[in-house]
Amino acid sequence: MKAVIHIELKPGVLDPQGRTIARSLAHMGFGGVTSARQGKTIELELDTEDAGQARIDVEKMCNQLLANVVIEDYQIEIIDKKIDENTEKSTE
Amino acid sequence: MKAVIHIELKPGVLDPQGRTIARSLAHMGFGGVTSARQGKTIELELDTEDAGQARIDVEKMCNQLLANVVIEDYQIEIIDKKIDENTEKSTE
Repeated sequence: MKAVIHIELKPGVLDPQGRTIARSLAHMGFGGVTSARQGKTIELELDTEDAGQARIDVEKMCNQLLANVVIEDYQIEIIDKKIDENTEKSTE
Repeated sequence: MKAVIHIELKPGVLDPQGRTIARSLAHMGFGGVTSARQGKTIELELDTEDAGQARIDVEKMCNQLLANVVIEDYQIEIIDKKIDENTEKSTE
């Protein structure tokens, strides 16, 4: 089982990294960028077959370690690896 | 127009941040995590109505500034804001 966690700053929270990106792009001639925000993605490989339990565990991980819930929002995506493996076998 | 860029390390490139996350989770009692990898997401607001041109511009931005193409892969998602605004109006 695989979990993908998307973490981003809550709307309204100042994002200095994003502002630097927007300013740098403007300096490089990309004038059409009106704002930029940076978030992060964490991909976990999980040693379980139970998608429901996986989601519960990953939510705990987010609240305890991965996200700062005061200023960040997160979204969890659980991906069943077996399905992926079947579809990817042809490319090996 | 909005662009979301997903940037992740290429397979095989060492990810010290990911390893730290996996080790920390194990220390906290989440034993089922066999590996972790961290990537980033950049959301850009673009002052254009042309999705095709937006994609070309964002690809240039990725190659010149946002991604380190030697060690990172990126994916670009172009989102037409007008559609979003129409569907979100009811929640305001």
